[in-house]
Amino acid sequence: MSHAPSATLKRRHEAVRHACARASVDALIVTSRSNILYLTNFAGSSGIVVLTPDRVQFITDFRYVTSLEGLQQSPEACPDLHLTVVEGTYDATLATLLTSLGLARVAFEAANITVSRHTWLTATLATSAGAPQLVPAEQTVERIRLRKDDYELSMLRESARRLSEVAGGVFSEVRAGRTERELALSIDGRILAAGFDRTAFDTIVASGPNAALPHARPGERILGENDLVVLDFGGVYRSYCSDLTRTVVVGTASARAREVHAAVLAAHDCAIQAVAPGRSRFAIDAAARDVLTARGLGDAFGHGTGHGLGIDIHEDPKVTRRSGEPEGASDDELVDAGMVFTIEPGAYLPGWGGVRIEDDVLVTQHGVEVLTSVTTDLLEL
Amino acid sequence: MSHAPSATLKRRHEAVRHACARASVDALIVTSRSNILYLTNFAGSSGIVVLTPDRVQFITDFRYVTSLEGLQQSPEACPDLHLTVVEGTYDATLATLLTSLGLARVAFEAANITVSRHTWLTATLATSAGAPQLVPAEQTVERIRLRKDDYELSMLRESARRLSEVAGGVFSEVRAGRTERELALSIDGRILAAGFDRTAFDTIVASGPNAALPHARPGERILGENDLVVLDFGGVYRSYCSDLTRTVVVGTASARAREVHAAVLAAHDCAIQAVAPGRSRFAIDAAARDVLTARGLGDAFGHGTGHGLGIDIHEDPKVTRRSGEPEGASDDELVDAGMVFTIEPGAYLPGWGGVRIEDDVLVTQHGVEVLTSVTTDLLEL
Repeated sequence: MSHAPSATLKRRHEAVRHACARASVDALIVTSRSNILYLTNFAGSSGIVVLTPDRVQFITDFRYVTSLEGLQQSPEACPDLHLTVVEGTYDATLATLLTSLGLARVAFEAANITVSRHTWLTATLATSAGAPQLVPAEQTVERIRLRKDDYELSMLRESARRLSEVAGGVFSEVRAGRTERELALSIDGRILAAGFDRTAFDTIVASGPNAALPHARPGERILGENDLVVLDFGGVYRSYCSDLTRTVVVGTASARAREVHAAVLAAHDCAIQAVAPGRSRFAIDAAARDVLTARGLGDAFGHGTGHGLGIDIHEDPKVTRRSGEPEGASDDELVDAGMVFTIEPGAYLPGWGGVRIEDDVLVTQHGVEVLTSVTTDLLEL
Repeated sequence: MSHAPSATLKRRHEAVRHACARASVDALIVTSRSNILYLTNFAGSSGIVVLTPDRVQFITDFRYVTSLEGLQQSPEACPDLHLTVVEGTYDATLATLLTSLGLARVAFEAANITVSRHTWLTATLATSAGAPQLVPAEQTVERIRLRKDDYELSMLRESARRLSEVAGGVFSEVRAGRTERELALSIDGRILAAGFDRTAFDTIVASGPNAALPHARPGERILGENDLVVLDFGGVYRSYCSDLTRTVVVGTASARAREVHAAVLAAHDCAIQAVAPGRSRFAIDAAARDVLTARGLGDAFGHGTGHGLGIDIHEDPKVTRRSGEPEGASDDELVDAGMVFTIEPGAYLPGWGGVRIEDDVLVTQHGVEVLTSVTTDLLEL
């Protein structure tokens, strides 16, 4: 559960209200679970927020009323919250609420409303006197979430610190004779035992040739001598994600394994060194990619260098190759202080295996802070 | 991972093609992950299927190509699959593919495409010669998934059997002095150790007054003597969900606890007895609700009696009160052989606690089969 201070929530509301004013809309319908958590501290799975100029209109159903009331009596209550309990369906309740508010233009999160829901809502509001016009909005709350506030940074630092501690124990579990699946289960157990709410994604243990699959699922393959093993795992600590990858060797590393690992590590280090406020996210990606290309591994690195981290395991900024975006720096291109993302270059050679090394970094006022802290040496276990 | 036989996949494709023909569309764009798994055995997190009259056009990105090729070389390959690897973005690749197919009307899953994506796709196709018209579709694959096929039933039976075995071990963990959170972690560990892919949802351990919250999250509350404890947990076994709730007592049950438990159990038993092909899902809900109302607990039962289970933890049919639907039996109202859902009445008394009892049932040709098998006695542990 997340418990940002009430004053922090209030600042977030004001930031969204300013964005609404700039877009000439009177309110924003928030349907993204992560955005609702960010604005209210409510971590339940069902709810809708309508952020108006003076209220946080909150719709939820019977199941969550007691828990919401408990939250509202805590020191981390959501300011200006007004609760409406669902009658019938969520969208019918939303339509009734919208009609009652006397607003002219209300934005909705176009990336979080399906065509089905939008069609139904539009048709329903069209028959209601006093209903507002619905206006699509993109990234209104996400753009604010890009720069983490002090509360979020404390959670992200703690999430990364705990995950780094978990990593030490994880290495002690790697040995010949165990299956990928057994190892993944023991990693999950260590993550939960370290106080995380849950794992941030399905843990990856990819050994030998399976390591050539960037998103392999742990299976019945038994770890053998000289296997490279990619270990990619993450945790959610009080709603904030951390994400870490190390590639280790069972027994002794081959010369080729050392060579590929050294190349990926150099790419990882160069990318981190490229991080600073005002740098282009494409340039950070290029810093990793150019190292691998120079060592003949450019084609073996098929994904982006990193992704934003926060309430979601995949957020902006995307540290990737430029694709389609026009040349030249725009607001969307430059990283800025308060942004948190992964740096995770890899090299994947079908039939042979692969290497990935991943850390979580924060852009600071003057450079970069690496939040995770685990050796990047090629461990022989 | 799910591995339905190729012949089963082929039958599913034909069922979708018949539905497309009835709706006068030439193909269906499938974006729901669960529907993609159902149609292809592909369990990765990113992909788009376009099911045409003679092909399963499959779009995925670099990360999943090796794993998909492995699947296609296995005995459970997806018939008629044609792979397109993402260039640029998924939706740009989809637009190019759609333009190349020479089709006039293509349906999309309106409940699984956001307004943002739809707006972009429509605008892009409008500028492409030979692009099809996009037509919204609802529940095309879901309606077929409502009735489980033999492969699915074997997975659902095994998932429920394993979860029932887990329950025995879970009871042995309940004792005064442990926190809800510790107990939840040990339940999660037992689920993973029993061979499940993952837990089906965040495990609920709600003790004492917390048991009055139907969707409580396990916290630091310490289990004490005479506490009622709601234990609600589920697993995903080879992509198929099971879901079980029992309410137990630490030490000795109070008279009131016995009374509420007996009422919920009677509601549970009556609802299961009401299950048979051709029965109304509203009537099954009423069978449980009427028992609780007769015992003065109608207002304490604020949620529906059950939900469908399958690849998703919440599917149709919804076993709930009628709300808004017209009176009179329709196809959507009646349960039928092959449907699988939960029966989970509860009673929640704020400040005191609550009771819920949940099993998973299959509608058979002649009645009902209860897939989970765990005592419903009020256990004093």
